[in-house]
Amino acid sequence: MSTSSVAKLDAIFKPKSVAVVGASTKPGTVGNDLLLNLVRDKFSGKIYPVNPKADEIHGVKVYKTLGDIPDEVDLAVLIVPAKVIPGLVQESKAKGVKGLVIISAGFKESGHEGAEREKELTKLVREAGIPLIGPNCLGVINPQINLNASFAAKIALKGNLGFISQSGALCTSVLDYAEARQIGFSKFVSFGNKADVKETDLLEYLADDPETKAIALYLEDIGDAKRFIEVASKTFWEKEKPILCLKSGRSAEGAKAVSSHTGSLAGSDAVYEAVLKQAGVQRVTTISELFDLAALYTTQPLPKGNRLAIITNAGGPGIMATDAAIAAGLKLAKLEDSTKEKLKPPVLPEAAALNNPVDVIGDAHSDRYQAAVETVMNDPNVDMGVVLLTPQSMTDSDNCGKILPDVIKKIGKPVVAAFMGVKQVEEGVNYLVKNGVPNYAFPEDAVKSLAAATRLVDTKSIAKREYVEYKDVDIANANKIIADYLGNQSEKYLTQADCRPLFECYKLPLLKSGIAQSADEAAKIVSGIGIDKKVVMKVMSAEVVHKFDAGGVLLNIEGVDGAKTCYDKIYANIAKNVPSAKIDGILIEEMAEKGVEVIVGCNRDGLGPLMMFGLGGTLVELLKDVSFRLAPMWKVTAEQMVREIKAFKVLDGYRGTPKCDLDAVVDTILRMAALAVNHPEVAEFDVNPLIVHAEGKGASVADSRVMLRKPR
Amino acid sequence: MSTSSVAKLDAIFKPKSVAVVGASTKPGTVGNDLLLNLVRDKFSGKIYPVNPKADEIHGVKVYKTLGDIPDEVDLAVLIVPAKVIPGLVQESKAKGVKGLVIISAGFKESGHEGAEREKELTKLVREAGIPLIGPNCLGVINPQINLNASFAAKIALKGNLGFISQSGALCTSVLDYAEARQIGFSKFVSFGNKADVKETDLLEYLADDPETKAIALYLEDIGDAKRFIEVASKTFWEKEKPILCLKSGRSAEGAKAVSSHTGSLAGSDAVYEAVLKQAGVQRVTTISELFDLAALYTTQPLPKGNRLAIITNAGGPGIMATDAAIAAGLKLAKLEDSTKEKLKPPVLPEAAALNNPVDVIGDAHSDRYQAAVETVMNDPNVDMGVVLLTPQSMTDSDNCGKILPDVIKKIGKPVVAAFMGVKQVEEGVNYLVKNGVPNYAFPEDAVKSLAAATRLVDTKSIAKREYVEYKDVDIANANKIIADYLGNQSEKYLTQADCRPLFECYKLPLLKSGIAQSADEAAKIVSGIGIDKKVVMKVMSAEVVHKFDAGGVLLNIEGVDGAKTCYDKIYANIAKNVPSAKIDGILIEEMAEKGVEVIVGCNRDGLGPLMMFGLGGTLVELLKDVSFRLAPMWKVTAEQMVREIKAFKVLDGYRGTPKCDLDAVVDTILRMAALAVNHPEVAEFDVNPLIVHAEGKGASVADSRVMLRKPR
Repeated sequence: MSTSSVAKLDAIFKPKSVAVVGASTKPGTVGNDLLLNLVRDKFSGKIYPVNPKADEIHGVKVYKTLGDIPDEVDLAVLIVPAKVIPGLVQESKAKGVKGLVIISAGFKESGHEGAEREKELTKLVREAGIPLIGPNCLGVINPQINLNASFAAKIALKGNLGFISQSGALCTSVLDYAEARQIGFSKFVSFGNKADVKETDLLEYLADDPETKAIALYLEDIGDAKRFIEVASKTFWEKEKPILCLKSGRSAEGAKAVSSHTGSLAGSDAVYEAVLKQAGVQRVTTISELFDLAALYTTQPLPKGNRLAIITNAGGPGIMATDAAIAAGLKLAKLEDSTKEKLKPPVLPEAAALNNPVDVIGDAHSDRYQAAVETVMNDPNVDMGVVLLTPQSMTDSDNCGKILPDVIKKIGKPVVAAFMGVKQVEEGVNYLVKNGVPNYAFPEDAVKSLAAATRLVDTKSIAKREYVEYKDVDIANANKIIADYLGNQSEKYLTQADCRPLFECYKLPLLKSGIAQSADEAAKIVSGIGIDKKVVMKVMSAEVVHKFDAGGVLLNIEGVDGAKTCYDKIYANIAKNVPSAKIDGILIEEMAEKGVEVIVGCNRDGLGPLMMFGLGGTLVELLKDVSFRLAPMWKVTAEQMVREIKAFKVLDGYRGTPKCDLDAVVDTILRMAALAVNHPEVAEFDVNPLIVHAEGKGASVADSRVMLRKPR
Repeated sequence: MSTSSVAKLDAIFKPKSVAVVGASTKPGTVGNDLLLNLVRDKFSGKIYPVNPKADEIHGVKVYKTLGDIPDEVDLAVLIVPAKVIPGLVQESKAKGVKGLVIISAGFKESGHEGAEREKELTKLVREAGIPLIGPNCLGVINPQINLNASFAAKIALKGNLGFISQSGALCTSVLDYAEARQIGFSKFVSFGNKADVKETDLLEYLADDPETKAIALYLEDIGDAKRFIEVASKTFWEKEKPILCLKSGRSAEGAKAVSSHTGSLAGSDAVYEAVLKQAGVQRVTTISELFDLAALYTTQPLPKGNRLAIITNAGGPGIMATDAAIAAGLKLAKLEDSTKEKLKPPVLPEAAALNNPVDVIGDAHSDRYQAAVETVMNDPNVDMGVVLLTPQSMTDSDNCGKILPDVIKKIGKPVVAAFMGVKQVEEGVNYLVKNGVPNYAFPEDAVKSLAAATRLVDTKSIAKREYVEYKDVDIANANKIIADYLGNQSEKYLTQADCRPLFECYKLPLLKSGIAQSADEAAKIVSGIGIDKKVVMKVMSAEVVHKFDAGGVLLNIEGVDGAKTCYDKIYANIAKNVPSAKIDGILIEEMAEKGVEVIVGCNRDGLGPLMMFGLGGTLVELLKDVSFRLAPMWKVTAEQMVREIKAFKVLDGYRGTPKCDLDAVVDTILRMAALAVNHPEVAEFDVNPLIVHAEGKGASVADSRVMLRKPR
């Protein structure tokens, strides 16, 4: 679906009229259920069932064909065998239908023939210019206009969460669960095989949908990672709508055998993890977590900091909330003295605890809760709050539930509740939730959700979403080098020496080197490298197999005179030890200065080049302390990669060691990302190690390898 | 409370008669509520309210005093002001009361005076020989005999979970929540300030309680860690009752400033983490997790392996369960061909997926579920199962719920359900849960719970709970050395050299050394160290400050002749460079052979000596890849410490490096643990690094320090 057509989705989500093609007289069938849903849930527009053999279903007049419908049809829902779908698309076009939802299965999910049929379908609807959701889906729901164009057993509650799901079966359970938690939806979409409308189109639509405050995705794959990142990041950073994603199913691409270091460290899920991070999408691992956060994001403002206030009527839960807060990286707010002053008797009783957690004591009624929440939450040191209530003999949880929403609304900071229990607090919780205060069964979930909100706003820096354009790279020459290496081969492994010309095109920080044919040339090369540098000199000869043993390698050579002497010495050594050897020259290489060894790698996944960063050494490998992002990436993304590893402090100056040149690391990552993006033949590479020197002193590629592979 | 008196707790949990001292006529008071609970919940024994001013409350005859009660009183519940408690204990003794529950507050929790009052109370009840639960608690519930001797608003459901809680306020919420999940209890205890009966006593009681199949603890501290470990480990490994613990509240001891490496790495919670691990107690972090696992442990057998079968009627949830299983360390069972054969049509339809996850397809009725569960779960490659059900149009979740419990009972492997949704699956879930099949709202929670069960049985090796007795350690001499070092000081820091005599008493693997006063002596010492070893020689002189610069330290010395030569050389160097220096001799130390550097440390916590193990080096420190256990520990515990660190592979032979001498590491940990246990003055120590050599070659203490401190 082309980006410009997203507006066309209004025909699907806000239709004035819906045709149900394949409406059935037989109860228990999808064609009967779906029509019943539209009727029972009181769709605000017109309903036109289509079935050549029926006159009336669920009290609604039935038309023989789409063409017979006397009015305009905005949305047609097709519930007919896959084979007759193409004809119906043509009919829809003829009738001027503006949007399609195809419930029918029998496409990509059913094997080769179905996949071919689906390709045809995509072509057909695009030619017709009609946006299509499905096929093989549950349908769509827009509770705002009572549209239940799905065969889910119930309509979603009205609310502000946009939900899009790649699994239809999941949708029914989710609707049921969400209703029990009183979570309402702006749009609820099962998008099935995504033959036309993709997850990114739906995201873009919801980004502009005024009824949507937050978005929840259930995805099994992502089609176009680059567009996903663009759309999702705009939705979050520009439209300020948090996006949650439950991503399930491992990448088939990731599971295939890989030869590189990066590949072996990148778990099959790493690329999705990377894409979601880059996109600013918050990943959740369970459906309950999804709704814990959705409840917060659709009702409360995002926090401005991580200082939490806890108001409780019992010590134990206060401790549990404190523990959970610290474990989740929050801080307990330090209340101002003036705040504590305001809480003193008669506001709270003598026995109350006025330090955070503020304990209003077991016999607290709603008035005490009101006073405590107002006072504490308005303290300038408090960024967010959680109100805990255990139902004790004197507790009036109903009243607490009644008064808190108004109090909380005025505060302008996120505040959530944990009225603990089920039946005993039922009525109070009902008041809370219906009036926009999320409630959690236990303090830990409440605190974890607030902590997740803090992590979400922590990504603020990403607002600078800028690509670095390297004008000094020589793409044409790199292409030529790659083509020469590959020749007719399908793949070619490049050694460190082979990498040099390619890396030079990308101005990677290579150590200087040269080949000397005479002692004078050696001196000249050393002058070029810099007389303050140490160099290594190696004999170049196919006949000298054990170069070290033959005296063909000399290390730590300093200065012009040293170079000359060593040049002669190597010749003498070889003449003595391998007299028959033909010498092609002496390779002189700059020795890298000391620094921290890191690895920058890349492994091409189905979604694109997956870049990896980590410290060098086996220990890091063992502990899997590495970060991943998809190329191309913004500059800030590369910065995140570097800062994200647990051992980052090693680079940032730890225990007196100097701070490393982080700019050089970021620059190297971005240049290597450009290499991967510009040349699809670059299948994998590792720069391992890249030696990172002290601040301002750059980095050096000390070893590297590249695998070139002709793209299929 | 003495261990032998645990049997006495029957008087509290299985009383034939209960006196409520402080029963009140005033509704809404604890004294009124508690009596009401006994009456309303139909306690199977006799109830005797005691109140000097009333005749009848809740239809029960009231007695003026305990002494007035005509029958025997097994349990007396006291709800009277703290001040009159001592008198009532005396009255109870006179009356022959066999157990006490004191609800009243006003003790340790209320400050210094209360704490003194509590000490008195403890003394009093112990003299009287009456076991006491409380004070400052909610009371106790035994649903098996309808005993609700608490002021919780409702009685617990009958079941097999023993629950003991240090927080009273939490109990009401937990009861409410557990009822909603239909989780029943064998005993439900709020134990308050634990003036007499401790968590360990209750554990011991529940270990022998035939109605208790699993135990759940909410703890804010642990009084006696050693006894806790003994009792809990017996309960789990011998009585085969899993124990779950929600531990909340950070250790005050842990938060105090520490000077050692170990101390700085041990978070405040590390000691509790260590104790729970040693005790075989499974720690949970949320109440919902607690009940997720309790539901499993009270109804299903523990798994024999980690191979999971998934049976589902929808693809999406099957994928979610698969992802959750892999993430939690489970394996997807590979079904036998014969199993798949049995599932073929007509048992399952053509479109069904016969590979695990087995998809019975969206239109499956209970018969298909029954056949699939029976067939798949009896596959010998399957250790455990999860049955997923999404409510689709054709799904009969009620019937599925009805038939599954019988099927599952016959299998003898743990099987749980995730009937997804709330209202739509309500009836089916009711059948499941009432008949002993745990149900989870979503696949992830079901799978996580099974994975937790697998981790629990993984600790099988701990069944060998044996202490190593070191007969070769010289405790008396160590005591003398410590006393000499400390003298009159309250603390004393020992350098590496200072540690030597102390460590020698414990036969720690010290590098050999000696002091030479002549070249011949030097030769003799080197012979003793071994002529195949390298040594370092250092001048001993207070006047030579910069020993290295003055030529007073020589490295890598080999053989007897080398030693002689170097002895003379050092004398010559000093004579030349620091002519005024008085030389006390030459220290000769064995140089450690190569190996992997590890750290073994100890930091004394309120609960005992907390031992730490990890690899050496700053990186490990940064990544906090260390393990903790409390000393004394079993041999297997030390082995766990070593294997638990993420970088364990480095010791176990990684990428061609030789396997290290793990026995030597374990031996060193245990010897150092013995040092810490035997000498309370040993406040902190680090052996850092301990160099671990290749298998069979032992380990060497390369550097160490000890902080001695007089215990308060």
